Amino acid sequence: MTTQSSLNDALKADLVSAYRILVNENVLDSFGHITVRSAKDPSIFLMPRAMPPSLVTVDDVLELRVEDSQPIDPQGRRVNGERYIHGEIFKAREDVSCVIHTHSQAVIPLSLTKYRMRPVVAQAGFLPLQSPTFEIRDARETGGRGMQVTDSKRGAALAKALGYNPAALMRGHGNVVVGRSIKEATVYAAYVDINARMQTQAMLLSPEIATLDEAELFTPEEFDINRPWQHLLLKTMDASAKAAVDRAQFGLDQTQRKQ
Amino acid sequence: MTTQSSLNDALKADLVSAYRILVNENVLDSFGHITVRSAKDPSIFLMPRAMPPSLVTVDDVLELRVEDSQPIDPQGRRVNGERYIHGEIFKAREDVSCVIHTHSQAVIPLSLTKYRMRPVVAQAGFLPLQSPTFEIRDARETGGRGMQVTDSKRGAALAKALGYNPAALMRGHGNVVVGRSIKEATVYAAYVDINARMQTQAMLLSPEIATLDEAELFTPEEFDINRPWQHLLLKTMDASAKAAVDRAQFGLDQTQRKQ
Amino acid sequence: MTTQSSLNDALKADLVSAYRILVNENVLDSFGHITVRSAKDPSIFLMPRAMPPSLVTVDDVLELRVEDSQPIDPQGRRVNGERYIHGEIFKAREDVSCVIHTHSQAVIPLSLTKYRMRPVVAQAGFLPLQSPTFEIRDARETGGRGMQVTDSKRGAALAKALGYNPAALMRGHGNVVVGRSIKEATVYAAYVDINARMQTQAMLLSPEIATLDEAELFTPEEFDINRPWQHLLLKTMDASAKAAVDRAQFGLDQTQRKQ
Amino acid sequence: MTTQSSLNDALKADLVSAYRILVNENVLDSFGHITVRSAKDPSIFLMPRAMPPSLVTVDDVLELRVEDSQPIDPQGRRVNGERYIHGEIFKAREDVSCVIHTHSQAVIPLSLTKYRMRPVVAQAGFLPLQSPTFEIRDARETGGRGMQVTDSKRGAALAKALGYNPAALMRGHGNVVVGRSIKEATVYAAYVDINARMQTQAMLLSPEIATLDEAELFTPEEFDINRPWQHLLLKTMDASAKAAVDRAQFGLDQTQRKQ
Repeated sequence: MTTQSSLNDALKADLVSAYRILVNENVLDSFGHITVRSAKDPSIFLMPRAMPPSLVTVDDVLELRVEDSQPIDPQGRRVNGERYIHGEIFKAREDVSCVIHTHSQAVIPLSLTKYRMRPVVAQAGFLPLQSPTFEIRDARETGGRGMQVTDSKRGAALAKALGYNPAALMRGHGNVVVGRSIKEATVYAAYVDINARMQTQAMLLSPEIATLDEAELFTPEEFDINRPWQHLLLKTMDASAKAAVDRAQFGLDQTQRKQ
Repeated sequence: MTTQSSLNDALKADLVSAYRILVNENVLDSFGHITVRSAKDPSIFLMPRAMPPSLVTVDDVLELRVEDSQPIDPQGRRVNGERYIHGEIFKAREDVSCVIHTHSQAVIPLSLTKYRMRPVVAQAGFLPLQSPTFEIRDARETGGRGMQVTDSKRGAALAKALGYNPAALMRGHGNVVVGRSIKEATVYAAYVDINARMQTQAMLLSPEIATLDEAELFTPEEFDINRPWQHLLLKTMDASAKAAVDRAQFGLDQTQRKQ
Repeated sequence: MTTQSSLNDALKADLVSAYRILVNENVLDSFGHITVRSAKDPSIFLMPRAMPPSLVTVDDVLELRVEDSQPIDPQGRRVNGERYIHGEIFKAREDVSCVIHTHSQAVIPLSLTKYRMRPVVAQAGFLPLQSPTFEIRDARETGGRGMQVTDSKRGAALAKALGYNPAALMRGHGNVVVGRSIKEATVYAAYVDINARMQTQAMLLSPEIATLDEAELFTPEEFDINRPWQHLLLKTMDASAKAAVDRAQFGLDQTQRKQ
Repeated sequence: MTTQSSLNDALKADLVSAYRILVNENVLDSFGHITVRSAKDPSIFLMPRAMPPSLVTVDDVLELRVEDSQPIDPQGRRVNGERYIHGEIFKAREDVSCVIHTHSQAVIPLSLTKYRMRPVVAQAGFLPLQSPTFEIRDARETGGRGMQVTDSKRGAALAKALGYNPAALMRGHGNVVVGRSIKEATVYAAYVDINARMQTQAMLLSPEIATLDEAELFTPEEFDINRPWQHLLLKTMDASAKAAVDRAQFGLDQTQRKQ
C-alpha cells in the first residue's frame, strides 16, 4: 500500500466518523452527503454510494471525477443525484478538501426569509458578516423544474453563489458547508447549525440583535477544530465504547499523569 | 399459502415497521393509527386492534370492511373508534392503499390558525400549494358533540375535505396522510411533520416566506421514497440490530464492493 | 393482608408507575410530587418521602393527614415542604383521589403572562374553557416571602384558586393537576403539558387561534385514559422490558389471536 | 494522606460529577469548564486539563494559581486558554469556591438582545432582579480582536461585570455562574438555563411578563441544592447504575423503612 493509498484510507475513516457525527447531531438526515478530495489526485473526489448515511463504511466510498461529477468505476453501485454540488464546488474551490451538503432543520427557516445568516456565536467567527443564500430559481433553466442540484449547470450556480465563503444556505433545502479537511468542514457544519438556531431565536426576541463584528471574525488557522471534533466524536459512542477509548488518541498522554 | 396471503403478510410486516418508524419519530403517540387496503380484496382494509402502537405485531392486525368500517371477524378484539377515518378515505380514494392518522404536535399549532399548510422544504413537493384543514364543526350534526371521527358521516366529511390531496390537517386534532403504499404514506407523514415545523418556524421570523412554486412540486412517481424509508427504519434499530442488518436488503450488494 | 391493605398496595404500585411516567415525559423534575388518597381512610393521603423522583419505590411511601398535611409515622424520614398543596386539595375536593404538582416547562411561559390556559387539542377536552392561574402574591400574608406552598393557609388559597377544575397553573412555578385516580391525574398531567405547548406555539403564530368549544369538552367518564396510560408506561421501558411485557396486562388476550 | 488532600480528593470527585451532570443537561458542550478553589490553599484553583468534558477524570485535574491563572506543575498537559475567567473571578470573589463557564444555548439568544436575564421561575430566586450581560468589546484593548477571555485583563473585566452576582451572561458566548461549592454552582447553572429558556419563551408570548419580586428572592442558605443535585446526578446514570445506587448516599436510610 503506497503512502497515497494510506492517505485515502485515513480520509475514508474520517469520512465515516463525520457521517456518524452529523447523523448523531441531527444535521444529516435521509439525504445530505459528505465528500472529500482524493489525496492521490485532486481531480478526483471520494463520495459514498447512494445509501442510508447511518450504514456508511469505508468500503462504500466511490471515486468520482471533479470535472463532470461522474463515478470512475462504480461497479453497479448507485451514486447520488446531487453529486454535482460536490464536483462543482471542488472545481471552483482549490482550497477546499471537504464538501458537506445537509438538510439541517436549524437553517431552513432562516433560508425561507429575506434574512441572511450572520455570525452571532463566538465559535461562528469563521463565517463572514453575511452568508449567501442560494436561490435555485435563479439557476433553473427556462422551463426547468425541481429544487435538486442534479446537473453541472446547477452545481456551478451553487458554487458561484457560495463564492469563497465557508457556507451557503439553500432556500427551502438546507445548506452546503466546506473546509480544508473533513474535520474542519464537519465542525463548521455543526457550528453553522448552532449559529443559525441562536440567530433565529434571538431574532424572534428582538428586531435588533448583536452580531459578531470584524474584530470577532477569525481565519480557519485561528480555530482549533480538534477540541470540538473530539467532543462530537465521543458523543457518538455509547458508555462502553467511551470507556474503551484510547486516551492517547485524544492527545491525553498517560505516562505524565501518574506521578 | 396463496400469493394473495403472502402479499397481505408482506403488508402486515410493512405495517408493523411503519408503526415503529412513526412512534420513533414522535409522529404517532397514544392515539393515531395506520391502515392498508387488503391485497386480497380492495373492499377490505387492515388495521391493528385498539392497542398501544409500540406493541403492534402482525398478529394484531384485523380486517375491516371499507363499506362501513366494521371488523369482519374480531373475535373479541376491540377496534378503534376512529376507524371511519380510514374506511371512508379508502372508499373515496381508489388510488390510496394506506391511510395514516396522527396527532402530530408539528402540525397542530398551524391547524389552530387560519393559515393553510404550504410546502416549504424540497422533499415536501408532493404536497399541493395549499393543503386543506378539516374543521369538524362543519361536519358535526346539529346538537352533535366531540371532535372524534367516530361514524361514517364524519369520516365522509373528512374524506371530502381531503379531496385528492396527500394530506389534510385536522384542527386541534392532528392530520391524515395517504399514499399508494405503506412506505409512501409513512415517508409522506414524516415529511409533512418536517414541513409543518419548518413553515411554522419561518412564519414566526417573517410575515413573508418563500414557499415552493409550481415548478418545484412533483408527482409521487418522481419521489424515491425508499431512501428515507430505509433511513427511518434504521433509526428504529439499536446498535446491535444495525450491525446485524442485511445490507442486501438495503440494495447494497456485497459482491461488487470487494474488488 | 386485608382488602384495604391490598388496595393501598395497588395504589402505591400505580404511584411508582406514575412517577416513572412523568419523569420520563419530562413533566416531573427534581421537584414536584404525586400523591393519592388512602383507600383505607379518606382522611389520609399517601406521599413519597422527600427524595429524587427517579428512586421512588413502594417502600418510600408515607401516610399523611389530610387535615394538617402532617406525616403519621415518619420514622425519621423527611417529608416535602409543599405537602400542603396536596392536603388542602384533598380537603377541598372530595371527588379527588390523586394530586400532582409539577414544575413543567410546558406551562411556565403561559403562566407568566395574562393569558389563561385554554383547551386546544382534542384530548384536552377534560379542561374547562379557561383554567385558573394561581398567583401566590394574592395568598401571601403581609410581609410574607417566597413562592413555595409551605403551609395550610397557602395550600388552602391554591385549592380555592383551583376550585372544581382539573388543573391550575401556578405563576412562575408550574401547575397542579387532579383526578379521580392516579391513572386519570397522570394522563391529565401529560395532556395539560401537550395542550399548553400547542396553545403557546399557536399563539406565537397568530393572535386569533381556535380553541375547543362547549360541544368539544367532555366529562371524565367520557375519556378512556387507559390507552394513553399504557402507551406512556410502555415508553418508560427499554427494549427487553417491552419484549417481556405481559400483553394480557394490556387487555390483549392471547388465545383469541392465534386462530 | 492528610485531611487537606482528602478534601481535594472529594472536590475532584464532585468536579467529575459536575462535568457529567452539565454535559448530560446539554449545558456544557465542547467548550466550557468547571473549576474549584483548592481546599489546601485558597490561592490555588483546580481545573481539568484541556480535554473533551466527557472524558474528565480525577487524574486530569491540574492546579493553577489564582494570581495569574497559570498552571503550577502541568507536566506537559495543556491548559485552557480561557482559564483567566476562573482565576480572575476567584481573585475578585472570596466567597466563591466554584466557577462554571458554559456556552449554553438557553442563554445565548437573550444575550444577543438588550434584555437582561430576570428571574421568572421559583427556583431562580437566587438570581438578582437583573443579571449583568458582559460585553467583551468594552473590555477589549484598542485594536484587540476576538471574544475569548484569554488574558488577565479580560478576565478582570468579566469579574467586574459579574460583581457580586451568581451569574452573568456573556454576549454571543454563553455565561459564567459561581457558587460557594461545586454542588451549588452546578445547580445554579442548571436553573439559570431553565430560567433563561422560560423567560425567553414567555417574552415571545407577551411584552409584559411576571418576574420574581423582592419577596420571592432568597439567599443561598435558603435554597436546598442537594435535592436537585441528586436528581441531576441520577439522570446521568443508566438503568443498571441507578439500580446499584447506594440509597444511603442519597440520605435514604434503609433500616427505618422496613418496619
